[in-house]
Amino acid sequence: MLLTPKSELRARVDRLQKAMKRKGLDGAIISQNVDLFYFSGTTQRSILYVPQQGPPVLMVQKSIERAKKESAIKLVEPMVVTQDIPKILKKHKIESPRAVGLEFDVLPVDQFRRLQKVLANVTFLDVSFLIRRLRMVKTPFEIEQIEKAIRVIEKILHKAQEIIREGMTEIEVDGLFIGLARGQGDQGRLRMRGWNQEMFHCHVLCGKTAAIPSFTETPIGGLGTTPAIAQGAGHNRIKRNEPILVDLGVGINGYVADITRTFVIGQLSERFHKGYQVLREVEALVESQAGPGVSCSHLYQEAVRLTKSRGFDLYFMGFGEGKVNFLGHGLGLEIDELPVLAKRYHPSLEQGMVFALEPKMVFPGEGAIGLEDDYLVTSRGIEKLSHFDDDIIHL
Amino acid sequence: MLLTPKSELRARVDRLQKAMKRKGLDGAIISQNVDLFYFSGTTQRSILYVPQQGPPVLMVQKSIERAKKESAIKLVEPMVVTQDIPKILKKHKIESPRAVGLEFDVLPVDQFRRLQKVLANVTFLDVSFLIRRLRMVKTPFEIEQIEKAIRVIEKILHKAQEIIREGMTEIEVDGLFIGLARGQGDQGRLRMRGWNQEMFHCHVLCGKTAAIPSFTETPIGGLGTTPAIAQGAGHNRIKRNEPILVDLGVGINGYVADITRTFVIGQLSERFHKGYQVLREVEALVESQAGPGVSCSHLYQEAVRLTKSRGFDLYFMGFGEGKVNFLGHGLGLEIDELPVLAKRYHPSLEQGMVFALEPKMVFPGEGAIGLEDDYLVTSRGIEKLSHFDDDIIHL
Repeated sequence: MLLTPKSELRARVDRLQKAMKRKGLDGAIISQNVDLFYFSGTTQRSILYVPQQGPPVLMVQKSIERAKKESAIKLVEPMVVTQDIPKILKKHKIESPRAVGLEFDVLPVDQFRRLQKVLANVTFLDVSFLIRRLRMVKTPFEIEQIEKAIRVIEKILHKAQEIIREGMTEIEVDGLFIGLARGQGDQGRLRMRGWNQEMFHCHVLCGKTAAIPSFTETPIGGLGTTPAIAQGAGHNRIKRNEPILVDLGVGINGYVADITRTFVIGQLSERFHKGYQVLREVEALVESQAGPGVSCSHLYQEAVRLTKSRGFDLYFMGFGEGKVNFLGHGLGLEIDELPVLAKRYHPSLEQGMVFALEPKMVFPGEGAIGLEDDYLVTSRGIEKLSHFDDDIIHL
Repeated sequence: MLLTPKSELRARVDRLQKAMKRKGLDGAIISQNVDLFYFSGTTQRSILYVPQQGPPVLMVQKSIERAKKESAIKLVEPMVVTQDIPKILKKHKIESPRAVGLEFDVLPVDQFRRLQKVLANVTFLDVSFLIRRLRMVKTPFEIEQIEKAIRVIEKILHKAQEIIREGMTEIEVDGLFIGLARGQGDQGRLRMRGWNQEMFHCHVLCGKTAAIPSFTETPIGGLGTTPAIAQGAGHNRIKRNEPILVDLGVGINGYVADITRTFVIGQLSERFHKGYQVLREVEALVESQAGPGVSCSHLYQEAVRLTKSRGFDLYFMGFGEGKVNFLGHGLGLEIDELPVLAKRYHPSLEQGMVFALEPKMVFPGEGAIGLEDDYLVTSRGIEKLSHFDDDIIHL
């Protein structure tokens, strides 16, 4: 099992400490699974205290044996209840911190109140955006993991050509893809950070069900099998001459990749073909313009401008209330990482960022087409990490 | 697609309103997906305001079209931002509530702070336990959905006998099971409410990897494929003469079922067989004693006493730091519902509760065996809802 190297953890903690110093924070309490894994290498039930200076302390409820094996953090202490925190910190000469960061975007109120009781003299501040910003630039180690996840998706896309048949339900196809991914080492869970967002590994959507708006932060969400979890594949059957949208997410060693292709049995109408060519033009446009220093919102605006000039802006990234104001999203331990290639996200790309670029089009009552590839921001531009035929795939 | 009947929603809201009256609450803001579905029938991005008296108001960000179709709630209003809440409430004559309930166990701090800003004169109180208690008694409609999920698991257990082969990896088997479940209509996500708990559909664990403690709130968690998501099946291969633990969760129409069986290729040692007989004795004990008015902790203690008298208490429900203090858990829209058949959960069973009874044993360095069935509390006792051979299954 691949463990996060000590050098990685040390560099991550170091960057967090520098950021905390700039913000005047004495420490940060990391407790959400994903952030915990990023800074400690383990997701065993723990709280990681990172002081502004000096080594972090990992306080473990369960399993301490596994946490010690998985994490390269040196100071690992057993913790029975939250009340133990001050005692453990004191043991490591961390006394009376005044300003401490917490992950306000994910931490539930009752967990927060428990910490408030235990650390009564502390002022808690939100560091969730700070952490998300630290996590957005990837190391070669992290990029390697994302590439492994990409390779698994590419294998599934190859097999998809044998699997998808007329008359199958979307969920049958979805199930076969998920099963393949899992057999190839997928970690079993695709994490999305946003409140109430529950991402699926797979969205297989055929024809007009793909065009129905969804609550998800995606241009295409699907109908699902129940309003209880109103997204993803449904009982709809694969039909001839309708676009079959396959959006696949796979996680390997914590890191996720995200690729979309459009399949068809038979032929698509002229409109879909023209729309798809515009999507490829959008990809080419971003490929030629993106790179360090280029603003994310600029790329989004340029893409919208292009689709407008081609007469497809109404359908681009969703239609009506289903339209989203982004075109791509960061990839890493979560599928909704920074940066976002969005209307309102103005920061620039930086070398080492990894993002999924997902130009999609939704034609209400007809269906959706999409193309999604994963990119690394290099010193000069961007490099496509996914390598799979980017045309509509005829079955 | 099955929608929640209006009569169900009305009865649920009514029970919530009665409970709020007892607690002196003027209203409750429901925003977590699952609670939202329970009280409104939709998970479209919304906030449901339930006043102490009068009809609830569903304020929808996206998709309002779908929310209107899915929910039998009469008052559905579009909402662009959280700031719109007071205006919408005012429109429906809901003015200046003073004490309002929120789901503190799941609501992130930043969502809470946003509501605090928008409803500045309100005192917010935690209603998460209150909601969980309301949800624990199921209606015939809900029991029917759980039974559908049970039928899907039983189908997979039948097919499991053809699928599981020596030399396959745990994740290959897991993938095939997940694929089958999905093809049979599984909703694609198994929800667990607890902070940082990320439940899997399937735990396939063979031999000693099943005996490794895990951070999850379960006696058996598995190694997983990565410390990033340290649970479930891993790269371990299925071997002869080792117990193969298959714990399956499936969700249909929002409702989950949860069943475990132990498989073996070849023969298990005497110790495993003896331990398994004790598990069946535990099932029989609970079946004979459980019913309305019987305390959950009493059932747990009786089970522990039995395993002690058989010399197996050390291994029962986990070993060492992996041991958990429960024996069963409520089932419904989440897999960790109330009641819990636990050491510290003293309330009594009530008619209409549905729970999974999961006696398991973990022998460190050797493996784990388990048996799990789903029960309904009837007027006189409990009724087993799952019907599948409860012996060790020889392949």
